[in-house]
Amino acid sequence: MELTHFDQSGKARMVDVTEKNETKRVAVATGRIVMQPETLALIRRGEMGKGDVLGVAQVAGVMGAKKTWELIPMCHPLLLTGVKLDYTLNDTENSITVQATVSTTGKTGVEMEALTAVSVAALTVYDMCKAVDKSMTIESIQLLHKSGGKSGIYSRGDK
Amino acid sequence: MELTHFDQSGKARMVDVTEKNETKRVAVATGRIVMQPETLALIRRGEMGKGDVLGVAQVAGVMGAKKTWELIPMCHPLLLTGVKLDYTLNDTENSITVQATVSTTGKTGVEMEALTAVSVAALTVYDMCKAVDKSMTIESIQLLHKSGGKSGIYSRGDK
Amino acid sequence: MELTHFDQSGKARMVDVTEKNETKRVAVATGRIVMQPETLALIRRGEMGKGDVLGVAQVAGVMGAKKTWELIPMCHPLLLTGVKLDYTLNDTENSITVQATVSTTGKTGVEMEALTAVSVAALTVYDMCKAVDKSMTIESIQLLHKSGGKSGIYSRGDK
Amino acid sequence: MELTHFDQSGKARMVDVTEKNETKRVAVATGRIVMQPETLALIRRGEMGKGDVLGVAQVAGVMGAKKTWELIPMCHPLLLTGVKLDYTLNDTENSITVQATVSTTGKTGVEMEALTAVSVAALTVYDMCKAVDKSMTIESIQLLHKSGGKSGIYSRGDK
Amino acid sequence: MELTHFDQSGKARMVDVTEKNETKRVAVATGRIVMQPETLALIRRGEMGKGDVLGVAQVAGVMGAKKTWELIPMCHPLLLTGVKLDYTLNDTENSITVQATVSTTGKTGVEMEALTAVSVAALTVYDMCKAVDKSMTIESIQLLHKSGGKSGIYSRGDK
Amino acid sequence: MELTHFDQSGKARMVDVTEKNETKRVAVATGRIVMQPETLALIRRGEMGKGDVLGVAQVAGVMGAKKTWELIPMCHPLLLTGVKLDYTLNDTENSITVQATVSTTGKTGVEMEALTAVSVAALTVYDMCKAVDKSMTIESIQLLHKSGGKSGIYSRGDK
Repeated sequence: MELTHFDQSGKARMVDVTEKNETKRVAVATGRIVMQPETLALIRRGEMGKGDVLGVAQVAGVMGAKKTWELIPMCHPLLLTGVKLDYTLNDTENSITVQATVSTTGKTGVEMEALTAVSVAALTVYDMCKAVDKSMTIESIQLLHKSGGKSGIYSRGDK
Repeated sequence: MELTHFDQSGKARMVDVTEKNETKRVAVATGRIVMQPETLALIRRGEMGKGDVLGVAQVAGVMGAKKTWELIPMCHPLLLTGVKLDYTLNDTENSITVQATVSTTGKTGVEMEALTAVSVAALTVYDMCKAVDKSMTIESIQLLHKSGGKSGIYSRGDK
Repeated sequence: MELTHFDQSGKARMVDVTEKNETKRVAVATGRIVMQPETLALIRRGEMGKGDVLGVAQVAGVMGAKKTWELIPMCHPLLLTGVKLDYTLNDTENSITVQATVSTTGKTGVEMEALTAVSVAALTVYDMCKAVDKSMTIESIQLLHKSGGKSGIYSRGDK
Repeated sequence: MELTHFDQSGKARMVDVTEKNETKRVAVATGRIVMQPETLALIRRGEMGKGDVLGVAQVAGVMGAKKTWELIPMCHPLLLTGVKLDYTLNDTENSITVQATVSTTGKTGVEMEALTAVSVAALTVYDMCKAVDKSMTIESIQLLHKSGGKSGIYSRGDK
Repeated sequence: MELTHFDQSGKARMVDVTEKNETKRVAVATGRIVMQPETLALIRRGEMGKGDVLGVAQVAGVMGAKKTWELIPMCHPLLLTGVKLDYTLNDTENSITVQATVSTTGKTGVEMEALTAVSVAALTVYDMCKAVDKSMTIESIQLLHKSGGKSGIYSRGDK
Repeated sequence: MELTHFDQSGKARMVDVTEKNETKRVAVATGRIVMQPETLALIRRGEMGKGDVLGVAQVAGVMGAKKTWELIPMCHPLLLTGVKLDYTLNDTENSITVQATVSTTGKTGVEMEALTAVSVAALTVYDMCKAVDKSMTIESIQLLHKSGGKSGIYSRGDK
């Protein structure tokens, strides 16, 4: 077991994927912002026409996915061919779950792009609401599923 | 209680802070990457000279803090005057805690910059280790403390 | 009358403003996207809850304003302290007018930031609607008003 | 007729083009900067060796085309394979027409890249000349022609 | 003999490579930072666990390679498939040689990406050490080798 | 003697300059591109109206200076208030010397900005001419002079 992002002398590198084939790849990631009930209520009201927090987070998430290679040092640049984000509001635990699905046809996967989309969308929700609730936390940013490439399919819960 | 990032008609805007004073501001944020024990062991070994995962995450976190205004749509650009990140390895819960401290002298706070530094550093750890552990999760990204500005000091746990 | 962005030998430069004072500065710019009546109707419907074209353009315009110094070669970087955009839908000429107001406290003005915000917002409207109307045109991008700095106030129509 | 940049619930997304074929694509866009006769004369003089406004705009336009995916939220990143800009000076209406031609081999078209190149070049002309003429306006940014992709050829004036 | 980055009227352009084939391409570049013996000793100590200058330069060089198309106006964007940097410390002339190897599969070569990686890594070494040695110089940034594309192999020393 | 960009445990950080005063700062850096005599002749011809290599390098250098904080990991963002570049063509050694002067009013110096401007301008010359001369080398990138800040004036050759 080794960390592929380092060479034999331990120096960080962008792994050489020149010889890999281009395959269709999809990755799905999620994360959750937990907040005060009043904050969730404010966001929900926004959905009905005034102050659309999730609309802004949506745009931020899509744009963030495209910037992944600029943020994560050893990530390969990729031509994303699809990015979408979905939100689920949960009144029991006063949270919003963000789910991002990213696709490409390329030599490496889009796991980092999906995780970055979720992170940037969640941070944007924090930013838009921090004037009323600084105690929000971002939880459980994780990869749910990915397909494509030599390592094939991964689903959360797989060994 | 209202979301200041929207105007009266509900349109998103960058809040006008022209009339605010420049004050010294500091924000501290944290987050945690939970992983397999083997992954934590690999990272620890890297610290001893080969494949320094946290060294790469360090650079990514500092650079990420500087890009906050590009990622979070309604964030004001700021001249950061200090960014540092610290890591704590926890063998009981197989996790690494990232803590970022960001300072500036400016008209708005650096909460988002500290939260972004933590997020980007944590995502970088994920990226560097995902070849051996795709099940890692990023937990509890949150603001610990901030000082400066009209709203003064916030410490986690405050009402 | 001379172009200040060139030195005496004709080479482009970023004008030296080191000795200028920081003053409060505001600039207002506008532009207009002219389209088919069906396209305008689609956008209006979006405002009522599905497919919010202007919401996306809003975010793009604010983020575009912050990137002005990266796009316009001789522009000085500035710490924008406020950016807002407004839209007026005009059914007579089937157009949408975008108006951007940008503020800062700095050594140079924010005219280019306001004009860039308008341009990026208008291009975003084009992008969001081009599947149904490639014939849209962007018209009359212009500075309406600016204040602050040694040259003082400019209002469109002034000599 | 629908806006493809939104999903069925009205949320903005980057349209999924994973299954589309890569084809050769070209787009041509234009725009016009209208100015005072003295401003046009100054720019023309620059062309003859001192203060080359259009030379700077040329570089800005090419670099702007490459940044389209960073500016326009739902634009796909693309590997541009050619960008050129041409200028026509018109003494009758005291204007400069910018024309940009952008090519790629890819899954989506380069209309937005051509329109962005024109916009950034025109804004750069404004910036370089604004010390002598703040009344300039940018007019008629539009797509002239595009080829490639499933929707085939579009020429301005087509139904 | 002509400069391909200009059209027949002398205007700069991004050369049209639409019709070129994608081939595997590799480029190797080097450069050297010459410094005071004490500075070299400090960097060497850092390698042994405190203040890892070359570790930071490594990350900067990889990230710099990915930004080449943003920095060099007429460079084509490319999907880099591998970037690595190596350092050789030379105690005779008190210097560090940086060597970068960049690969891609694409329509144009990665010479500029390798030269940019070297330049950014060398500038980062300067930045990290300038508090103790402002007299460092960066020497002999050059292309050592490149392969792929229609012009084939180039090795330094070739006619 | 210590490297300020690391904390006591050896971790890289952006040095905290919050408490420093803003002073006027200027830095001058130079570098040299050595080439074949035919290449220098081609560039000189360009200056007379066709294919202006140095005009493009000029724009690249100014824009590169503004991107320094994005390229050099531990650099502080700064509001540059002036950037200019000058070129000297030397027929004896077939070289072009680039000199960059950068100014700001800020808490840290602009040495890295001047060195980056020179590097990016030199790389751009390489890029524009590499079709005819791949053997060019970039030499002697160095700081000539800097003023401002607590450490005061530095001139090359000072002890």
